[in-house]
Amino acid sequence: MRRCQRCGQKAVVYLPQHRLSLCKEHYIEWYLKRVESTIREFKMFGKGDRVLVAVSGGKDSLSLWDALQRLGYRVEGLYIDLGIGEYSQRSRLACERFARERGLELYVLELRKEIATIPEIKEVESRPACSFCGQLKRYYMNRFAREKGYHVIATGHNLDDESATLLSNVLSWNMGYLSRQFPVLLEGDGFVRKVKPLVKFTEKENALYAFLSDIEYVEEECPFSEGASSIEYKRILSQIEEKSPGTKLRFYMDFLRRLHSLLRSEEVNLRPCRVCGEPTSAEVCSVCRLRERLSSRLLSSSPSS
Amino acid sequence: MRRCQRCGQKAVVYLPQHRLSLCKEHYIEWYLKRVESTIREFKMFGKGDRVLVAVSGGKDSLSLWDALQRLGYRVEGLYIDLGIGEYSQRSRLACERFARERGLELYVLELRKEIATIPEIKEVESRPACSFCGQLKRYYMNRFAREKGYHVIATGHNLDDESATLLSNVLSWNMGYLSRQFPVLLEGDGFVRKVKPLVKFTEKENALYAFLSDIEYVEEECPFSEGASSIEYKRILSQIEEKSPGTKLRFYMDFLRRLHSLLRSEEVNLRPCRVCGEPTSAEVCSVCRLRERLSSRLLSSSPSS
Repeated sequence: MRRCQRCGQKAVVYLPQHRLSLCKEHYIEWYLKRVESTIREFKMFGKGDRVLVAVSGGKDSLSLWDALQRLGYRVEGLYIDLGIGEYSQRSRLACERFARERGLELYVLELRKEIATIPEIKEVESRPACSFCGQLKRYYMNRFAREKGYHVIATGHNLDDESATLLSNVLSWNMGYLSRQFPVLLEGDGFVRKVKPLVKFTEKENALYAFLSDIEYVEEECPFSEGASSIEYKRILSQIEEKSPGTKLRFYMDFLRRLHSLLRSEEVNLRPCRVCGEPTSAEVCSVCRLRERLSSRLLSSSPSS
Repeated sequence: MRRCQRCGQKAVVYLPQHRLSLCKEHYIEWYLKRVESTIREFKMFGKGDRVLVAVSGGKDSLSLWDALQRLGYRVEGLYIDLGIGEYSQRSRLACERFARERGLELYVLELRKEIATIPEIKEVESRPACSFCGQLKRYYMNRFAREKGYHVIATGHNLDDESATLLSNVLSWNMGYLSRQFPVLLEGDGFVRKVKPLVKFTEKENALYAFLSDIEYVEEECPFSEGASSIEYKRILSQIEEKSPGTKLRFYMDFLRRLHSLLRSEEVNLRPCRVCGEPTSAEVCSVCRLRERLSSRLLSSSPSS
């Protein structure tokens, strides 16, 4: 039986990449300290900032919200209801219950009212759903945070997400994406600062924190995510991780420390979208162009045509 | 049935990453042109240079020797006999037969006479065999080429080798190794220029060239290479390649084009080894230190001790 390296009680977890065994209490303590030190290391935000955490109902974002609140940050939640049938309903309920039980403020933004649900858009768009869904979430999250006066948007991206994205960007040496892959994206040009305080935790570590903190999260994956290439890269990195524990963390952190600073981020000239006023590099932003495509498709498929 | 895209005859090969079907004759033509264009692209050497090709008896190095000779370069071979039992004997015979049948000059250097065989060294060294074997081959190859007045050493490293090494260096962001990973290492400080003209070909492409050119090569892998981490990385890249043909070539070539130039190669201060005079960054070079360890181990295990 493994024992907690802090107190000698029975351990509930062994973290091979850190060679660390911990009991429930000391795991939560370790996790919270590590969230705090990540926030400080990357100068993400301070105790005076108003933080909006983007929650999906899953283990990562609810653990983030929980941890930020326990660490004494001013944090409120935003749930974007994507309208993906029962999956969205269950996710929304998990977020609402989490907020209610803790007396926290949760905002809900319904994509249906803003543009259309993801399944409706999927009917007319040929791109993978993850592509336009991510775009829409970033757009509405940013607009909401800016309009409500938040200083920071925090998302629950974890080490598995970030290292898989890194592997994908490295395999094609996409220098633009690589130069923007950082756990902090600074504010400016109509964008609210965006931060990822959980980048040093694997999915499993977040799931364990959620479990030990009595967070009821939705385990179900989005039904549209199946076959995404990020899943393949996560699988590959997990294979390597199993043989060499610590590879994922080293791959991602050493990228930030050793390579990222060498990459010049290209200047992107942003201006307000002619239609909605949100920042864009084109004349009309991608969300307004998507909205245009949706209305022309709906018109052309209406019974009178 | 696929047809050759050059002449319409029955194709013997389909190259998914190039979307190319070719017959025997046009595959050999395509291969030779690609070797030539790689030599030019990286300014490896010219028709006047004396080239020494390091041959192991395998498909890659014998295909390289064959191609360089057919392209009209001044090329001779060097086989380093590592003394690995029947594996070395068969490899040596394959090189000797290849040279004899084509009337080419082959030099043989026996590691046994220079220092000790690989199995003998393995008995006393705790490092993986590939580590000291590579070191010894580079040392003796360089000394031989310099003493005999060759301008260039060419090795048969292929795309699978180079992309697996790249993946390994990227996963740990080993900036020193990354800055030196290039198909040409320039001469200087006692080092002869080293080039890898086959970096754009996969193992399979080299094997096919060898087969179609009637080169009798040894298929057997070195018995000491088992479990090497490079084999694991090759397997992973082949998994990705199967789903997305062209990934390996893009990963390697775009690294050279987009990232390599951003990496500063650290200055390494070289001086002649105090014992043998070969270039080294230490006072005594690693091969002389290995030789010292070998003699002290032999002394300590001799019957009189």
